[in-house]
Amino acid sequence: MSAPSKTAAGRFFEDFRLGETLRHATPHTVSAGDVSLYSALTGTRFAAQSAETFARAIGYRTAPIDDLLAFHVVFGKTVPDVSLNAVANLGYAACRFLEPIYPGDTLSATSQVIGLKENSNRQSGVVYVRSQGFDQHGRLALDYVRWVMVRKRDAAAPAPQMHVPDLPAAIAPAELGAACPKIDAAAYDFALAGSPYRWGDYAPGERIDHVDGVTVEEAEHQIAARLYQNTAKVHFNLFSESQGRFGRRLIYGGHVISLARALSFNGLANAFHIAAINGGRHVAPLFAGDTVFAWSEVIESAELPGRADVGALRLRTVAAKNRPCGDFPLRQGEGYEPSVVLDLDYWALLPR
Amino acid sequence: MSAPSKTAAGRFFEDFRLGETLRHATPHTVSAGDVSLYSALTGTRFAAQSAETFARAIGYRTAPIDDLLAFHVVFGKTVPDVSLNAVANLGYAACRFLEPIYPGDTLSATSQVIGLKENSNRQSGVVYVRSQGFDQHGRLALDYVRWVMVRKRDAAAPAPQMHVPDLPAAIAPAELGAACPKIDAAAYDFALAGSPYRWGDYAPGERIDHVDGVTVEEAEHQIAARLYQNTAKVHFNLFSESQGRFGRRLIYGGHVISLARALSFNGLANAFHIAAINGGRHVAPLFAGDTVFAWSEVIESAELPGRADVGALRLRTVAAKNRPCGDFPLRQGEGYEPSVVLDLDYWALLPR
Amino acid sequence: MSAPSKTAAGRFFEDFRLGETLRHATPHTVSAGDVSLYSALTGTRFAAQSAETFARAIGYRTAPIDDLLAFHVVFGKTVPDVSLNAVANLGYAACRFLEPIYPGDTLSATSQVIGLKENSNRQSGVVYVRSQGFDQHGRLALDYVRWVMVRKRDAAAPAPQMHVPDLPAAIAPAELGAACPKIDAAAYDFALAGSPYRWGDYAPGERIDHVDGVTVEEAEHQIAARLYQNTAKVHFNLFSESQGRFGRRLIYGGHVISLARALSFNGLANAFHIAAINGGRHVAPLFAGDTVFAWSEVIESAELPGRADVGALRLRTVAAKNRPCGDFPLRQGEGYEPSVVLDLDYWALLPR
Repeated sequence: MSAPSKTAAGRFFEDFRLGETLRHATPHTVSAGDVSLYSALTGTRFAAQSAETFARAIGYRTAPIDDLLAFHVVFGKTVPDVSLNAVANLGYAACRFLEPIYPGDTLSATSQVIGLKENSNRQSGVVYVRSQGFDQHGRLALDYVRWVMVRKRDAAAPAPQMHVPDLPAAIAPAELGAACPKIDAAAYDFALAGSPYRWGDYAPGERIDHVDGVTVEEAEHQIAARLYQNTAKVHFNLFSESQGRFGRRLIYGGHVISLARALSFNGLANAFHIAAINGGRHVAPLFAGDTVFAWSEVIESAELPGRADVGALRLRTVAAKNRPCGDFPLRQGEGYEPSVVLDLDYWALLPR
Repeated sequence: MSAPSKTAAGRFFEDFRLGETLRHATPHTVSAGDVSLYSALTGTRFAAQSAETFARAIGYRTAPIDDLLAFHVVFGKTVPDVSLNAVANLGYAACRFLEPIYPGDTLSATSQVIGLKENSNRQSGVVYVRSQGFDQHGRLALDYVRWVMVRKRDAAAPAPQMHVPDLPAAIAPAELGAACPKIDAAAYDFALAGSPYRWGDYAPGERIDHVDGVTVEEAEHQIAARLYQNTAKVHFNLFSESQGRFGRRLIYGGHVISLARALSFNGLANAFHIAAINGGRHVAPLFAGDTVFAWSEVIESAELPGRADVGALRLRTVAAKNRPCGDFPLRQGEGYEPSVVLDLDYWALLPR
Repeated sequence: MSAPSKTAAGRFFEDFRLGETLRHATPHTVSAGDVSLYSALTGTRFAAQSAETFARAIGYRTAPIDDLLAFHVVFGKTVPDVSLNAVANLGYAACRFLEPIYPGDTLSATSQVIGLKENSNRQSGVVYVRSQGFDQHGRLALDYVRWVMVRKRDAAAPAPQMHVPDLPAAIAPAELGAACPKIDAAAYDFALAGSPYRWGDYAPGERIDHVDGVTVEEAEHQIAARLYQNTAKVHFNLFSESQGRFGRRLIYGGHVISLARALSFNGLANAFHIAAINGGRHVAPLFAGDTVFAWSEVIESAELPGRADVGALRLRTVAAKNRPCGDFPLRQGEGYEPSVVLDLDYWALLPR
C-alpha cells in the first residue's frame, strides 16, 4: 500500500514557523485518581493539596491538584507537537499559574512558536514555545515558555527565520497570586500543615537543606510520565535507549522537579502554592537507581500588592543526585557541581 | 485439625462440566482511580477516554473507561474459577462490547463452559468458556469466548465429555456498535483527538508502523494485573516461577494487548472504541525488561447498518518484543517470526 | 545565614515527655484513587471493599476503604513526630477500628506518649504511643498503641521518666464491631464474596495455608509507603541505606501486613472486616525481591454481644518470605523460624 503514513513522526526543527500556534491533542480530565498517583509517585504532602478540609478552611473550593501536576499534564500535551524529536529540554521561563485546578477539571493546551535559532552545526536548532493550558471553560490556567533543542530532519534544509525572544528573569510579584484564593490566615492550621514558619520567618539568603533523599525506580518514572501523558521516547524505550546517548532510559525532567518540590516540604511545609516558575534548568540527567536530594535558598521575599493574606518567596531549589545537600552544592568552576541535576527558580506563596 | 481445606485450589481439567455456568466472585466498582492507573500503566490516550469534555461533546454520558480495562476486569474475575491451574491462555474469540462502562459502574462476571477437549498426553485439556460481564443493573456489557489449557489433577481421571465449539472467524459488522452511542461527528474535534484521519481514510491492506516502543517493568505488570484483580500465580510469584518453565514471572497477556493498543494511538488516534475482538493469540511470552513494539494492518472496512456517524475497521495489530516493527514482522516459515508476542484481530470504530 | 534550621529532624528519645499529646501534620482525604492504588499494590479483593453494590446490599453506605489502608494513612501521619529516628518498629497492640471510612473522608491523627523506657546501653529507648485517627467530623475512627525504638540524640542526655504501659493481650469481643454496620446476612452473597464459609464454619485450632505468594518490587513498596504518606527514610533512600544496617531499603512493615491480609483472602474470603489488631510483630525485615507467603490459625471464635449478624474470629496470620507455608512455619527453638517476617494477632468479622 502506498497510503501516506498515518503515523505522527513529530516536527523537526525546519518544520516550525515563527508565530504559528499549535493546538495540542488529548485534553485530559484530571481526576482523584491522578492526584493519588501523583502523591504516591512523588511523596508530595502539602496540606492544602492533601486534605479537602484543610483546603476549604483556608479558602479553596476543595483541595486543588498540585501545581506541578497541572504543569506536567499541560507539558505532556505539548510533547508530540514540540519535542518528540528533541535532543534536550533546555529550559523554562515565565511560567505563571493563573487558576486553581481541581479534580474534575479538563486541561487542554496550545503552544505558540515564539523563537527559533538554528545551531551552528546545522544538525539541530532551538525552538522557543509559549505553552498555555486551559480549563474546560477556556480559562487560561497555566502559561509558560520553554525552549528545547530539536533535530533537523535534513541538515541541508533551510533554517527558519531566526528569532530569540526576550524572556523576563523573573515574574514580578504583582503578577503572582491569581491561582490562589484569598486565604483565611486564621483558619490556616500550622500544626496540621507541618511547620510553624510563616512567610515572614524566611529571609533572603537563608539556605535550607531538605535532608531526605529518594531513589527513583524505572517503573516509577515511567508510570509518572504516562500519568502526565508525556510520550517522549527517551523515557520508555530501553531497546532504543540502550543504543543511545546514555545507554538507558532518561527520567522526565519534570518528574525531578516534582521530587525536589516534595523533598522541600521538609523546611518549606507552608509554601503551599507555586505561583510562578521564573526559570528552570535540567543541569544533568537523572537515571533510575539514582537518589535525589535537594536544598533551597531564599532569593527574595515579596509582598503581593493588595494582599495581606499571603506573601511570596522567590526560591532557588537545587536537586543533586547521590549526594546529600548539607553543604548546598551548586557551582564548580565555570559550571555546576557534577552531582547537581536541577536548578529551579520559582515563586511560592506562604501565609503571612 | 482435620477441617476440610478452606483454600480454593482452582478447578482442574476434570472438574469442568460442559454447559455448567460459573458465577465468579469479587464484583468490582470501576473508579476514577482505576482509570488513572490504567492510563499510567499503559499510556493509553484516546481522547474520548481521556477527557470528559471530549466524550460528552460527541455523545457519551461522560468519559467511558477504556474498553480493554473493562475486558481485563471481567477477565480477572474468571481466573480463580477457570484458569488458576492453566498451563497457557490459548486464545480469545467472539468478544463483543455491548454497553459503555463509566467510572462508578460495578462489573460482575459469569462463565459458561462451552467446550472441553482432553490433550492426547492426558496431562491436561483445553477448556472453552463463554464469559460475560454485567453492570450493576444486570445489563450484559461484555461477552467473549476464551480457551485455555488446564492441568489435570490426576492424569488417570476420566476426561469430561469432549466438545469443541464452533467459533466465528469474526463478528459481523451488523453486530457492532452497541456500546457506542450515536456520535456527533460535527463535534468530534480531530485536532484534539490527535489525528486528521477518519474511517474513510483507511483502506484494506494498509499497514501502519506504530513506531514507538515501551519497556515493561516487573512492578508495572504486577500492579496492572492486580488492578484487574487477576490472581494467576505466574504473574506474581518469583519464588515459584524461578523454578518454573520460564525461570521468571510471566506478564499477563491482556496487559500486552493494552500496551499494543496504546502504541497504536500513533496512527490510529481516532479508533476511539474497540467494538469487538474477533480473535487474539499470545504467540510468545513477554517478560519484564522486554520492549514492546506494534504495527497494524487494516483487514477490512465496514459500514455499520443504520449508522452514518461511525464506521468500523477490522484491524490486525501485531506486537513484537525487542524489535521495531517498520518491516511488519509476522510469519516465518510455518510459524510466527520469533519476536512476535501478540496477534490480535479486532473491530475498532472511527468517526466517518 | 544563621537562621535556626527550618528542617524537621524528628524527635529523639530524650525529646519525648510522658503524657504529652502530639498533633500530627498532613490530614489526608482518602479518595477513590487511593483505593485503586491500594488494591493494585496489595491485591486485596474482599467483596465489601471491592464493589459498592455488594457493600450497600449488606448495609454499608457505600464500599468502605480497606481497614488497613485507614491504618496505614493514620500510621503515616505519626512517622514524622514519632519514628523518624526509629531504629525499629517493635510492635502494635490494642488497635480498634471504630468507624467505617469511605472515600471522601479526611483522616487526621494525634499520638499520646504513654510509655518511655531507656535501653541499658543509653543509646536509645522505647517509646510507647497511643495513636488516634479521626475523620473530618472529629469522630474517633482508629485507636492503637505502638512502640518503637528511638535513637537518642545524645547518649549522655538524661532519660525521661520511665513508664511501661499495661497493654491488653487482646481486645475483648464486646469491644468489637463499632465500624461494622448491622449486616443483612440474607443479602450477603457468598458466591460473589468468593467462599461458602461463614463464621460458624471456622473452629479454634484450624490452620489455613493461603497458598499463593507475591514478590515485592522496590517501586511497589515505595509507591505504597508514599500512598500512606509514610516518610520513614529507610524505605526510600538507597544512597543512605546502602551504607546502613541492611545495605538496602527496608519495606514498610505495614505493607507486609497488607500483603498477608490480601493473601489470606484465599481461605478467609468472608473475613470482610478487621475489627481489631490485638498485637503484631515484624519478626524480620522484608526486602524487594522477596516473595511473601502466609498462613493463618484460628485462635478463638467469639460472638459479639447483641449481634446475630456477624461473629468474630481471632486469627493469627503469619507471613514468611521465600518459603511456602504449607507446613505452617512459626517457631524454631527460642525464636522464630528464620523465614517468618510477620506474626499478627487480630479479630476479623464474618457473617454468621
